[in-house]
Amino acid sequence: MAEKLTSRETDYSKWYNDLVIQADLAEHSAVRGCMVIKPYGYAIWEKMQAALDKMFKDTGHVNAYFPLFVPKSFLEKEEGHAEGFAKECAVVTHYRLKVNPDEPGKLMVDPESKLEEELIVRPTSEAIIWNTYKGWIQSYRDLPILINQWANVVRWEMRTRLFLRTTEFLWQEGHTAHATAQEAIQESEKMLDVYATFAEKWMAMPVIKGKKTESERFAGALDTMCIEALMQDGKALQAGTSHFLGQNFAKAFDVKFQPKEGALDYVWATSWVVSTRLMGALIMTHSDDNGLRLPPMLAPIQVVIVPIYKGVEQLESISQKLNPIIDALRAKDISVKYDDDDAKRSGWKFAEYELKGVPVRLAMGPKDMENGTIEVARRDNGTKETLSQDGIVEHVEKLLADIQENLFNQAFEHRATHITEVDSYEDFKKLLDEKGGFFAAHWDGTKETEERVKDETKATIRCIPLNAKQEDGKCMVTGKSSIQRVLFARAY
Amino acid sequence: MAEKLTSRETDYSKWYNDLVIQADLAEHSAVRGCMVIKPYGYAIWEKMQAALDKMFKDTGHVNAYFPLFVPKSFLEKEEGHAEGFAKECAVVTHYRLKVNPDEPGKLMVDPESKLEEELIVRPTSEAIIWNTYKGWIQSYRDLPILINQWANVVRWEMRTRLFLRTTEFLWQEGHTAHATAQEAIQESEKMLDVYATFAEKWMAMPVIKGKKTESERFAGALDTMCIEALMQDGKALQAGTSHFLGQNFAKAFDVKFQPKEGALDYVWATSWVVSTRLMGALIMTHSDDNGLRLPPMLAPIQVVIVPIYKGVEQLESISQKLNPIIDALRAKDISVKYDDDDAKRSGWKFAEYELKGVPVRLAMGPKDMENGTIEVARRDNGTKETLSQDGIVEHVEKLLADIQENLFNQAFEHRATHITEVDSYEDFKKLLDEKGGFFAAHWDGTKETEERVKDETKATIRCIPLNAKQEDGKCMVTGKSSIQRVLFARAY
Repeated sequence: MAEKLTSRETDYSKWYNDLVIQADLAEHSAVRGCMVIKPYGYAIWEKMQAALDKMFKDTGHVNAYFPLFVPKSFLEKEEGHAEGFAKECAVVTHYRLKVNPDEPGKLMVDPESKLEEELIVRPTSEAIIWNTYKGWIQSYRDLPILINQWANVVRWEMRTRLFLRTTEFLWQEGHTAHATAQEAIQESEKMLDVYATFAEKWMAMPVIKGKKTESERFAGALDTMCIEALMQDGKALQAGTSHFLGQNFAKAFDVKFQPKEGALDYVWATSWVVSTRLMGALIMTHSDDNGLRLPPMLAPIQVVIVPIYKGVEQLESISQKLNPIIDALRAKDISVKYDDDDAKRSGWKFAEYELKGVPVRLAMGPKDMENGTIEVARRDNGTKETLSQDGIVEHVEKLLADIQENLFNQAFEHRATHITEVDSYEDFKKLLDEKGGFFAAHWDGTKETEERVKDETKATIRCIPLNAKQEDGKCMVTGKSSIQRVLFARAY
Repeated sequence: MAEKLTSRETDYSKWYNDLVIQADLAEHSAVRGCMVIKPYGYAIWEKMQAALDKMFKDTGHVNAYFPLFVPKSFLEKEEGHAEGFAKECAVVTHYRLKVNPDEPGKLMVDPESKLEEELIVRPTSEAIIWNTYKGWIQSYRDLPILINQWANVVRWEMRTRLFLRTTEFLWQEGHTAHATAQEAIQESEKMLDVYATFAEKWMAMPVIKGKKTESERFAGALDTMCIEALMQDGKALQAGTSHFLGQNFAKAFDVKFQPKEGALDYVWATSWVVSTRLMGALIMTHSDDNGLRLPPMLAPIQVVIVPIYKGVEQLESISQKLNPIIDALRAKDISVKYDDDDAKRSGWKFAEYELKGVPVRLAMGPKDMENGTIEVARRDNGTKETLSQDGIVEHVEKLLADIQENLFNQAFEHRATHITEVDSYEDFKKLLDEKGGFFAAHWDGTKETEERVKDETKATIRCIPLNAKQEDGKCMVTGKSSIQRVLFARAY
């Protein structure tokens, strides 16, 4: 049995770390900064993958796979891109080990196996993919290319946290090629919408769609759009990004096409990614001091059923009563775990499934057998009811939908009370510490002001919301004129 | 449009390479030995993954994810394992690039970022996983652990071929931990059966289950079992392996558990893998000089429908007739592509879908409109029929099952006529060149004889079949006594 979690109030960061470990989602590995995603955590990630993959395919995309390694010279080709990633690259320099002649049983790098050109373990795949697309694109008939890749990537991070920032992580990266700028922009907007829908519908996590400022853009992009979510501690988390890359990579890798009319032109590009970081976002959006709270649409176990019994005979008669209920739930594609493990007390089980965030718990004991009832407990609000066994399947089905909605509404409510309009830098600094959350403030549009705020408060401009109303105002820092508010926050 | 394929007769190896490229399955990348798996090839791999993943889960396994990197010292811990993989390892030695001061715009490895201990890009994950399991296992209650991982792995191969042998490839690796040797052995047998079922039922590829000889065992295993398939050119291909690892890795990583009774003991292990190599096996089992022949259960497109028309009006009336057929096929979970692309002739389309191995092609033209008919073409045997539109959906459904069965039967027949019993080494050498295939021969059980055959003929012992009848005989090479025949073949 897990120890009691640190409370969120006491230490939010420790609560998060404890929870990831105790709920068996992931752990640190022996390799610096790399995590092991444990089966329960991976099962949630698989559900995320399945939902996203279907949405990608429904919007016309196909999957493919490109090499793990990027030759160093490829990374150099797009200047901004190279600058952005050079400092955090795992570099393969040799391709063989040999027995160490000085230490029997030990291996050493064989100096004879030095590579002529070093290979970088992909931090992202624009370079290797655009070098490949060069061979695939001659004419407008070859466009658009709408490809996604599910892959692992490596960025050598100095400070890592499970799911939120790890040296190796899992992600999907869409890489599309288009004949016109307009089509590429539409694609990047469409995929941002897909991400927003996924976050809100599956993860029950409200997000704000917006544009990044120039200094927060992806290395090599003309424009980066993002979805930003708000965690319970008032910090923001970037949950997905969609980039309009213009012709930058086409120019770097000389990818031209013959349009229907007119002269050869460079191809237009987008890329868009979400990663295992979403796991961190999911945890910090919903969970409480007793453990995970998982939205039913992503819960590996949606319903756990615990029989309360003494002795084999009683278990058998309870199981007989429960089996048709289990079958009927499964027939509705509800994932059910029936936990009749004799080695563990029901109290232990209740705490365990609470920790694991299982949305609905059913329990049936001798009293219920007499009365034709069953106990139904909701993980989201902790309520318990004793209901008739008749109609329990339909009740549970509805309950799962209610819980999904309730989790979204709670998160939405929390976010709504944590978007604060501020007009003075003093108020901003004060409320940033006292209250946290997003701050809608006027900004003069300069990098200098953005950096000053970051240096002085650790808050960054999370995004310029897409739907922001145009409103004349004055920058909260410099007093210069501004036409709309942007969202500041401290962020993960 | 693709060029004509080299015929299998002319040059089987070139035929294979041409086909992989022309059918758009994969291509060589700019990174030595690494391939790009293109969308059509990846779609087949996804179907393989989905079927296997379900079989793994149905047999009680769960997925997880372990780090890409293995510290060099971990690889050293199991001696046989280290020897087996040391010579083909991609080695990460540094974690940062920097701008080259001598060449503006160029990057160089930052010598300050040298790692204290080199990291190996996983050639397989036993070492990193058993180091992790150490933390998960204390008592028999923690066992069994039944985990699978879908991942990329890297082995620095000098001679590579698309799908069959590439530096990076995709695979799944099961890694299980057990309280007893017997349970681990049963697990390795069970997973071999899963592989055999997958190969025969989904891939329509008959396989022989057997044990590897000691010299062909996985590096670190006590016993390696395999499924062996026969390609059209008479060469064998190892399509999957399942290893009983004994307590080797538990000892190397000091993983002990408290049994129900008795003293602390080391944990027993298995591992089992199939990889993108299966794509090569699939191609070389079924395809012909006109292109791929895909078994319907793995075909991304099961039915292609081509309207034969002149002008928009005719297309519209044909489409009206076809739409309910398309809907009805899709309602039966049959994947249908309706190709009404006006820019390509139907002759081009027919050749294209033949090359791509689509099992069933339907075509409807003005004559069919008059007569209420539709043309049905089978990819497996090239036959065409004109049938009534009534009942076409049920006909196609049955046809797909027939094609799946027919492909298996053809491959089975080919293999049946290419397992030859031989009793003299002379006959063996002669028939190996003339006929190819598997040779069932007596062997004296020594490494020396095995190696001599390999040196002199390039044939290896593919396996000692699990179901081989016990039969006294004399080794075909040395004349020493033997109790059963083993299978020799040249192999991929």
